[in-house]
Amino acid sequence: MRLARVAHSEGVSFVALEPDPAAPGEKVLAVEIDQHPFGQPTFTGRKWPMADVRLLAPILPTKVLCVGKNYAEHAREMGGEPPENPLLFMKPSTAVVGPNVPIKSPVSSERVDFEGELAVVIGQPCKDVPEARGTEVLLGYTIANDVTARDQQWADGQWTRAKGYDTFCPLGPWIDTEVDPGDLGLRTELDGELKQESRTSLLIHDVAALVSYVSRVMTLLPGDVLLTGTPSGVGPMEPGQKVSVSIDGLGTLTNPVQQRE
Amino acid sequence: MRLARVAHSEGVSFVALEPDPAAPGEKVLAVEIDQHPFGQPTFTGRKWPMADVRLLAPILPTKVLCVGKNYAEHAREMGGEPPENPLLFMKPSTAVVGPNVPIKSPVSSERVDFEGELAVVIGQPCKDVPEARGTEVLLGYTIANDVTARDQQWADGQWTRAKGYDTFCPLGPWIDTEVDPGDLGLRTELDGELKQESRTSLLIHDVAALVSYVSRVMTLLPGDVLLTGTPSGVGPMEPGQKVSVSIDGLGTLTNPVQQRE
Repeated sequence: MRLARVAHSEGVSFVALEPDPAAPGEKVLAVEIDQHPFGQPTFTGRKWPMADVRLLAPILPTKVLCVGKNYAEHAREMGGEPPENPLLFMKPSTAVVGPNVPIKSPVSSERVDFEGELAVVIGQPCKDVPEARGTEVLLGYTIANDVTARDQQWADGQWTRAKGYDTFCPLGPWIDTEVDPGDLGLRTELDGELKQESRTSLLIHDVAALVSYVSRVMTLLPGDVLLTGTPSGVGPMEPGQKVSVSIDGLGTLTNPVQQRE
Repeated sequence: MRLARVAHSEGVSFVALEPDPAAPGEKVLAVEIDQHPFGQPTFTGRKWPMADVRLLAPILPTKVLCVGKNYAEHAREMGGEPPENPLLFMKPSTAVVGPNVPIKSPVSSERVDFEGELAVVIGQPCKDVPEARGTEVLLGYTIANDVTARDQQWADGQWTRAKGYDTFCPLGPWIDTEVDPGDLGLRTELDGELKQESRTSLLIHDVAALVSYVSRVMTLLPGDVLLTGTPSGVGPMEPGQKVSVSIDGLGTLTNPVQQRE
């Protein structure tokens, strides 16, 4: 199932995205979910053609955990070897935006980079999850862009400021509950030019290992998001450009870049 | 006004702590606030003697921002000079606990430290707050213990894991809306022995500067908490010990330490 959050003429709803029986294979309907999408969702009966809704960030997390240097080639391009344990950091939930929302580049930074990543969404409250059950606690998978003010990342040492600006965590376009995360192709394009290309099979710590590791530190709550790390090829974006992160089976997350006033 | 969140026989409520008219100067009543304490609170009419309620963490923040090395002597005991800009990091909201709740020391760490701090609570949605208005956006002030697995802080480089364990952010005992944060004495005691003693006048970046700085990065929401940094004297705690952080005008935040199972 594909789960999304949409703005429609009467408000905002979680929806399942389903083929339109009138034109299956061509058109998609947004089918409203009652309240929230966790567990076995129930449906209200309301539905809208996709043309009549706007996709929002598919979830509003209580926390966003991220992992640094989780692809060996990226660790090397950052000037080091990958650490033995997953290297955790956080982005504030206020950084989350949906597809097509502008990434706002702050005047305080001279270099704002894209980092395309596979993201997982937690489906139930959990802690101390055994690695063998790491994917069982998930609602599903989506795409993230771990936008980073690279100059401030190096200047501060701690990465919270560099990665915490409003709009610096695009998520979407939806959550897929069924994809196998083991070996998905990931591509990042800037104005149509290929910048990052890798596969999730190259993750040093895979999804199950990451979920288990983080859950041994902190309780994870439904809707919490874990970004699994970016492959090599990161680079700067300029206002006026458009960045797209695509993952096999998960679609494409596209955001324009603007200068923040 | 002193704002608290309490558990009582019928549930959990925000309350104002007021002198009991039957024994003013001796006893305190918890006077129930309707819904939430932001803006001009309204009261439901229910009230309880303090003996009949249990103080919880006075707020459940959507995010907890922290500042490293914001007292010069502490920066030096950590082995460096204070950075020019406030050094930001985050604790997950799942780390928050209230007064008297045990701090759980994880088996993965061999050294868990106390760090007593002044904390501020945001009172309204805000961004790009001018420094001159930095204290106007606050709900008030409380006490925090920025508990830290010191060995993991050094091992990881990023501080999220070391500072992110469940129970690693004791807050309380209440929020004072009127105290002047400019020059408050701060003391941390471990089993009654004085370990940290300083004054908030020694903060390198004061409350208004910190609120302004953080709000230029990310939107702050009502209830968000900002820890202003710890003075020198940090040190380890052992299971079985009890740690108390006291700040003039704000009371004392006490938590026992236990081994996490």
